[in-house]
Amino acid sequence: MGQTHSIIKFMKNTDEILMNTVISTALKAGDILRTGFRQRFEVEQKSAHDLITEYDTTVQQFIVEQLSKAFPGAGFVAEEEHFSTKGDPLLVIDPLDGTNNFAMGIPQFCVSIGVFTGERQPKAGVVYNPVLEELYHAQVGKGAYLNGEPIHVTQEPLKDTLVATALPFKFRDKVDWITQLLLHVYPEVMDIRRLGSAALDICYTAAGIFGLYFEYGINAWDTAAGVCLLREAGGVALDFSGQPYDPFTSKSIVVGPSAHVERVLHLWRESGVQLEG
Amino acid sequence: MGQTHSIIKFMKNTDEILMNTVISTALKAGDILRTGFRQRFEVEQKSAHDLITEYDTTVQQFIVEQLSKAFPGAGFVAEEEHFSTKGDPLLVIDPLDGTNNFAMGIPQFCVSIGVFTGERQPKAGVVYNPVLEELYHAQVGKGAYLNGEPIHVTQEPLKDTLVATALPFKFRDKVDWITQLLLHVYPEVMDIRRLGSAALDICYTAAGIFGLYFEYGINAWDTAAGVCLLREAGGVALDFSGQPYDPFTSKSIVVGPSAHVERVLHLWRESGVQLEG
Repeated sequence: MGQTHSIIKFMKNTDEILMNTVISTALKAGDILRTGFRQRFEVEQKSAHDLITEYDTTVQQFIVEQLSKAFPGAGFVAEEEHFSTKGDPLLVIDPLDGTNNFAMGIPQFCVSIGVFTGERQPKAGVVYNPVLEELYHAQVGKGAYLNGEPIHVTQEPLKDTLVATALPFKFRDKVDWITQLLLHVYPEVMDIRRLGSAALDICYTAAGIFGLYFEYGINAWDTAAGVCLLREAGGVALDFSGQPYDPFTSKSIVVGPSAHVERVLHLWRESGVQLEG
Repeated sequence: MGQTHSIIKFMKNTDEILMNTVISTALKAGDILRTGFRQRFEVEQKSAHDLITEYDTTVQQFIVEQLSKAFPGAGFVAEEEHFSTKGDPLLVIDPLDGTNNFAMGIPQFCVSIGVFTGERQPKAGVVYNPVLEELYHAQVGKGAYLNGEPIHVTQEPLKDTLVATALPFKFRDKVDWITQLLLHVYPEVMDIRRLGSAALDICYTAAGIFGLYFEYGINAWDTAAGVCLLREAGGVALDFSGQPYDPFTSKSIVVGPSAHVERVLHLWRESGVQLEG
């Protein structure tokens, strides 16, 4: 008994140390972003629809350095450079989700860090918006929090909620398809939002601010942390084909309270539009 | 000469007093909104897509009281109650633009006060987002400002800018039409945003954060203040038919640097879609 207790205690402490380290790293990374917001800085065009600022690279470097020091065995998957994907924990990082917003002066952007410990689904997630000073964090089995207060997906019916989405700018051949999906959802909701940061959209859904979020063309670093939060807040994350969302392989995502996600998938299936995962 | 000077001085002071009073009223109104943000409050459904909170009515009452005291001859046009539209100055007020955002917990909402002095176009405008503490103000001929710093519409080409818009939830028969307009703009821009406050969207365009904003189904209280800011920041405001935007009669609005507005109107005309003002 005594031994079991101490193992549990040890495990708990390891989890707590991991969580605290990731949170404190995200907060410090956010401080760097905050100092740059609406200041002059270097911006490059990564593609026609994707900017990259000096902050993306600086902050990513900062996060990887901090977490490498704290967890020498860690692996990293990060937006601006793909490191070793082996390692435990595996840390999936977007140093600046919503770069276009940051570059243009819209305060909807964040640091996102998802934590994997040997499984395909995130074990923990931290998302921080430094302008609004909103820290979202979750660990599997321990609930989801905004600035320390528990959050939950909405209990309102879909028609009384705002729904977040995006047109797929990197996949132009998908725009008519996504527009059709959007127009099927439109009559069933209060209004549509497009704020421009996938990680925050998922957190907002976890916090009940949005009743649903869906997007095509997302990556693990956009979603990993948010999906952990969302599930701990009582929501589900699927792909457009209705399969559980996998951060490393799914191209599409739809998240929200189970009833909303099921309703929207049902509408899409009924409409006869093609649904790829 | 002495007399002319003193008349000019008097007029200038009158303008300044008006401006300062409107600004200080907007700031105080914003303080009231800030105390309510993400707190529990009364929400009613004005329509399927429009909420009204106790803050809409409280803040409107506060603004009308303050400005009636300061300007006994004033007339008021306000979102939540239509007062006398006669009076000088005529004050066009949205106590809480972005009510759905406010009610759901999205920090994109504002107080908007447009000032008319006998003409159909705004003479001054004040927009205040109390969460982000962003105060936009302008007077005809005196430039547009964000927290006291001059702002200007973007000089970037349209393709390198974010474009703000909305689907028309109150005019369901217009949704396919607006979707078509949006899809004609889509290939020419960096990305689309739908933040959910028309007044802030126009201010963001004035500040160069957005490269263009267009929407159908807006009202004078959504746009009056913003349009003054936008024009003073070097932009133009037209309706979809290419006529100068009139806050009291136009149903549609498109704003931005002249070149962007002209380009988008050209695209729409070329496409053959119907264009109503």
